[in-house]
Amino acid sequence: MPGAHRAAGLHRPRPSSPEEPPALEDQDLLLAAAYVSDAQYNRNVPFETSPQAVRLYHFYNHWTMRAATYFFIWVDLALALFEEPALFPLPFLATSIAEVLCLTAFFGRLVHFAKVTPQMVFWKDTKNICIMVTIVLTLIDLITYGSLEAVNIHGVRWSRALRPVFLINFPESRQIRRAFRSIRNTLPDILYVFLLFIFSVLIFSLMALKLFGDRGLKTVQGSPYFTNILDIAFELYVLVTTANSPDVMMPAYEFNWWYSLYFITYIIINTYIFMSVFLAVVYNNYRKHLKNEIRTLAYLKRHKMIEAFNILKVKVGTEFVVKEAQWRQLAKVVEPDISSSHLELLLRISDEGQKGYVDKTNFLRLADLLNIQVVTINIKRHPLEAWMPRVYQSSPSLLVQKMVRHRIFVWVYDVIILINAIFIALDEKNPLISYAEWLFLSLYIIEILLKLYTYEPRAYFGRKQFWNWFDTLIIIAALVATVANTTIQSARKYNSQQILDIVLILRILRLLRVIVSIQRFRVIVTTLINIGPTMLTFGGLVLVVYYVFAIIGMEVFHGKVHFFDPGSTSPDALVCGNPALKDSAFARGRYCRNNFNDLPASLILLTELTVVNQWHILADGFALVTHQAAKLYFIGFHVVVVILIVNIFIAFILEAFFVAYSLEKSEVETAIEKKIQELGVGVQEEEVQDGKLIDNVDAKDSGFSGDDGDNKRKALKGLYFRIASKSKVQDRGCFAAADV
Amino acid sequence: MPGAHRAAGLHRPRPSSPEEPPALEDQDLLLAAAYVSDAQYNRNVPFETSPQAVRLYHFYNHWTMRAATYFFIWVDLALALFEEPALFPLPFLATSIAEVLCLTAFFGRLVHFAKVTPQMVFWKDTKNICIMVTIVLTLIDLITYGSLEAVNIHGVRWSRALRPVFLINFPESRQIRRAFRSIRNTLPDILYVFLLFIFSVLIFSLMALKLFGDRGLKTVQGSPYFTNILDIAFELYVLVTTANSPDVMMPAYEFNWWYSLYFITYIIINTYIFMSVFLAVVYNNYRKHLKNEIRTLAYLKRHKMIEAFNILKVKVGTEFVVKEAQWRQLAKVVEPDISSSHLELLLRISDEGQKGYVDKTNFLRLADLLNIQVVTINIKRHPLEAWMPRVYQSSPSLLVQKMVRHRIFVWVYDVIILINAIFIALDEKNPLISYAEWLFLSLYIIEILLKLYTYEPRAYFGRKQFWNWFDTLIIIAALVATVANTTIQSARKYNSQQILDIVLILRILRLLRVIVSIQRFRVIVTTLINIGPTMLTFGGLVLVVYYVFAIIGMEVFHGKVHFFDPGSTSPDALVCGNPALKDSAFARGRYCRNNFNDLPASLILLTELTVVNQWHILADGFALVTHQAAKLYFIGFHVVVVILIVNIFIAFILEAFFVAYSLEKSEVETAIEKKIQELGVGVQEEEVQDGKLIDNVDAKDSGFSGDDGDNKRKALKGLYFRIASKSKVQDRGCFAAADV
Repeated sequence: MPGAHRAAGLHRPRPSSPEEPPALEDQDLLLAAAYVSDAQYNRNVPFETSPQAVRLYHFYNHWTMRAATYFFIWVDLALALFEEPALFPLPFLATSIAEVLCLTAFFGRLVHFAKVTPQMVFWKDTKNICIMVTIVLTLIDLITYGSLEAVNIHGVRWSRALRPVFLINFPESRQIRRAFRSIRNTLPDILYVFLLFIFSVLIFSLMALKLFGDRGLKTVQGSPYFTNILDIAFELYVLVTTANSPDVMMPAYEFNWWYSLYFITYIIINTYIFMSVFLAVVYNNYRKHLKNEIRTLAYLKRHKMIEAFNILKVKVGTEFVVKEAQWRQLAKVVEPDISSSHLELLLRISDEGQKGYVDKTNFLRLADLLNIQVVTINIKRHPLEAWMPRVYQSSPSLLVQKMVRHRIFVWVYDVIILINAIFIALDEKNPLISYAEWLFLSLYIIEILLKLYTYEPRAYFGRKQFWNWFDTLIIIAALVATVANTTIQSARKYNSQQILDIVLILRILRLLRVIVSIQRFRVIVTTLINIGPTMLTFGGLVLVVYYVFAIIGMEVFHGKVHFFDPGSTSPDALVCGNPALKDSAFARGRYCRNNFNDLPASLILLTELTVVNQWHILADGFALVTHQAAKLYFIGFHVVVVILIVNIFIAFILEAFFVAYSLEKSEVETAIEKKIQELGVGVQEEEVQDGKLIDNVDAKDSGFSGDDGDNKRKALKGLYFRIASKSKVQDRGCFAAADV
Repeated sequence: MPGAHRAAGLHRPRPSSPEEPPALEDQDLLLAAAYVSDAQYNRNVPFETSPQAVRLYHFYNHWTMRAATYFFIWVDLALALFEEPALFPLPFLATSIAEVLCLTAFFGRLVHFAKVTPQMVFWKDTKNICIMVTIVLTLIDLITYGSLEAVNIHGVRWSRALRPVFLINFPESRQIRRAFRSIRNTLPDILYVFLLFIFSVLIFSLMALKLFGDRGLKTVQGSPYFTNILDIAFELYVLVTTANSPDVMMPAYEFNWWYSLYFITYIIINTYIFMSVFLAVVYNNYRKHLKNEIRTLAYLKRHKMIEAFNILKVKVGTEFVVKEAQWRQLAKVVEPDISSSHLELLLRISDEGQKGYVDKTNFLRLADLLNIQVVTINIKRHPLEAWMPRVYQSSPSLLVQKMVRHRIFVWVYDVIILINAIFIALDEKNPLISYAEWLFLSLYIIEILLKLYTYEPRAYFGRKQFWNWFDTLIIIAALVATVANTTIQSARKYNSQQILDIVLILRILRLLRVIVSIQRFRVIVTTLINIGPTMLTFGGLVLVVYYVFAIIGMEVFHGKVHFFDPGSTSPDALVCGNPALKDSAFARGRYCRNNFNDLPASLILLTELTVVNQWHILADGFALVTHQAAKLYFIGFHVVVVILIVNIFIAFILEAFFVAYSLEKSEVETAIEKKIQELGVGVQEEEVQDGKLIDNVDAKDSGFSGDDGDNKRKALKGLYFRIASKSKVQDRGCFAAADV
């Protein structure tokens, strides 16, 4: 295998010749583990291979370090809550000290990274440069702002808009970066469609000016209709978002119904066709990009696994292999929490013939094997059965268990939930109904207790038992909140609003349990929940864009619009404290609370803009209190968020659903499943879901401390495996690479 | 080839044994042509194979018969314009006579079809039963309504809602039927998502009732906020469509900003996730369905071609083949307009070795070959060159030609168009500008004349030269309209509004020519134009749904809301003639013209509902003048049109663009192109587009009356072929099967 040898030699001088097995030093193991771990998590960080650097690299990837980085990123972002315009004002000194602290942490993280990665690579990486530049810029901004403040000149904290740079550029945020890369790749294609679209809007604007400009028509508010080309272009852009339909058409339509054809043509071309083309372009690029990413990732993964193999390989006969003991140690280092039964299973798959070593092909699969979640199911007896077998096995006890397992038990509780829903919808004031609430609560608690009595508790609260967890947590929270509420009520004779709200919400969330009873619903919800983690990537992406726009918005628009308490009788309340808003749709719609006066208000306002409806009224309002050019801010937000990000979101959901629909398994999964079946330790997913096994199996992922192969028999005895929910694995496999 | 023989024997007793070549009767040829034609157009009509039935079938498929059917369908649909509530009222007698006439035509078409198709098949086909039942029902309705009218009781013309049945169920409307089938197949999957979605809306409604119901909050209009569960559910459904965002949130948001989280959660779950899932489900089914359809179509096509082969085959050596002469005759019958040079090309492809016969494999490709548009380019000299070669070849003339062909010529005209755009945007009142209009018009006319002088006119107005046609027609129309307008103006001293409008629109449409100059724009527009014909299928689909909803709407809501002229001073004008609308958002928005008082008004209103924005105000308005249950009509429309049809439209655009992006050629196209290249008669598309060839080539699709192979050399000499715009063929090939 000269090729493999060469690959190893590329990055690292190998002291021992491959002919004689190298002494398995800790360092070699750590280095190999670093490669495997990088392959497993699709990390692509070039690192120094000196023992010290490898140790530093392991430390760099340790979860505590990552968590600390994220903590400081969040603190940095959250500072906007305390800075002017603030929700909770803090003196500039406090926030600036906190910010400097965060910057120090970021700098420390960067230095750590510099120690790990080769110098050359470090300085060539734009990410690192970005972080450093941002740190410097922020410091400059802080000093300038502080000095100006000292002489009572109010500056602009512009560097705050740069804060998301930290969220994007640390190597941990690979997925958010991918999302941005996806957007960047889409831009050239979308640009031409966008230009054509703008051209079309302008042509229609000209037409509108010529057709309606001289008619002397008036809008509902009595202002002249379609007389200024810029206003028309804005109105027509708004029409593309449908936000002013049909109002924008009404004056022309009232004048002559033929003119409605102009607007219908416009809507078909620009709203329907162009917007679909935008989606098509974004989606097409998304898919193309996805394919390339997956290809690159697969290549890099293989490359890293070959590196790891070359470190550990020894020659047996004519081929290079990795000895079982070393393979085992490696897996333990990479995944310290792996159960030895799981490890045993993986070894059996990798060492097909039980020859005591793993050949290259099988070794390269290790990263994939580790990625596949195998649920180790340990069939155990119910603890009550162990503690008092006589009582648990008595006929009344068995009857209860049989009853609970019966289908009718589920139906009865579905009916109870339904009745509960009706009671909730009825008037709360009726004392009978508030007593009924206690009845329902106890019924639900009894249900959980009965189930715990019947099913093995550790299985019932197994890792994958989402709905059991959901049920129990909701009920316990409801119980605690209801008791707390009643105590406060009887003690102080008043309802605590917050607690009451929580009680109400929990009470209604309980109704969601009906979903579990209906197979089809469960499937849809499971798919959605599986997509969940990746949707968080979009959360990150949206957060970055929202944050930047919110900071800009706060700098530009804060204090322009004021919210007065609903009870306020001040005449200013009617115009949101700004006379410029007199007679505006903004004031008429009582939109005063939609302002940029603090971070949450800004984010809520941006959410409203994302939903699109009435965005032109918001834009008009802020243009009135500042300048017409302010509309550009709102149009820019629409283009970035609605045309780009929302479309990527839709593309992502489409792709995720298509993957979920096509239930093909990957090659590696099939290998695992085959082996599980071969060993006769397989469990059908249906059996588990139907509760046939769940009463005496135990979802067991850790335990068994044996390190060597001696307890092989023991580890596999009484254990059952299955691949964690097929579609789930599928999704994860795809999304790991796919989540943009 | 026993298999093929069996296939032939399956459907039709073959009188002549395959060993002796059958006398090529006209009837056999006609029958084979019917099969090939069915295969070519993907028709799937089982027909009798008796000579008389085949002749009737050819007549049935003749374009005049099809056009007549469509004519009567349109007349039938258009009757709604003249019936109460009518745009142009006609007496009941007139419309009923017209309707009976249409019904007679439909019945005649059905009888014709019954003569063609086997009895058994005819009576088993739901389409035919549907048409017959609808005819009978319509007659019953006509008689009932007429008799009631005679005794002055006003009935309901319910059968009018059934009229689209004719549009759907005649075999010609295959594509609309496919679209409906696609929707029907999607229903089961979408139903569960929809139920879950409704469940989610109800859960959120309950929560809203509990959270906000007792707060005593008021909306902007001063009505109580979120106190009735049904109202809440409606408001929240409207929020899914985003039509009442952010207004629906404002009272709660003003009360406490934490409550905005409730609405944001709702919007993320229901508006973004559920609506994307709807699109995903629809799109997924659309693709699945598409694959099946294409597979079935391919199977049926092959089957029909085998039938045709079995009719014409003769034995040569060990294999069955079709003689060249018969093949030629067949192609001529199937495609009477085919040019003999084109026929020659196809024959060369089918009869690879020029053996004088076509083997089975090649014969089966005939339908596909005929479907591919091959542009026959005949290089010809400019007529002026032929008429007066001395003048045309003189150096000033050559200079002009060189100038026109130069890139700068295009740029100069682009600049002229830009200046023209600025002049249009400026004030019309200025006399200088209105004179400039004449200048621009003449400049454009000069451009066209110069181009016609330089390029061969027949090539310039070739079939595929969309933009040349567009240019010329727009300019001529503008010229005619401007002259007409000026004449009227100077004669009667007033501007005719209609003509002026047309002049204005034409003047602006001219600006679209800039698109041609920019390569990227041209590509996008070409793709859109290519999708065009299939989008008409959606037009048909939308028309059917709109028509049914419009008829129902007119029966239920007509006369409830009146439109008063904008100048009207009647107090009723403020409430659209209905006191129930006092203080409603409907009246405040001056929506009186949005009513169901005639067919165009209804269709425009339904378009507004499709655009979604403000639909709840329209729904509220019509609920106020009738009953709250009227909202169900609007919700139903939303579910059918926006959730189903618009999503299918988006799925279609996505798929169409993906196909356009992937430029792989089909096997048959490749074969044709290879042959064209082999024969050395190929023309690169770019050459044609860049105008290098266009000046002396002639797009020639007909001509050459030679029927036999003698003029083979002649036909191919001086002729050049190319496959009509690659992406275009691709699209058509896919859409023919694909357009739902």
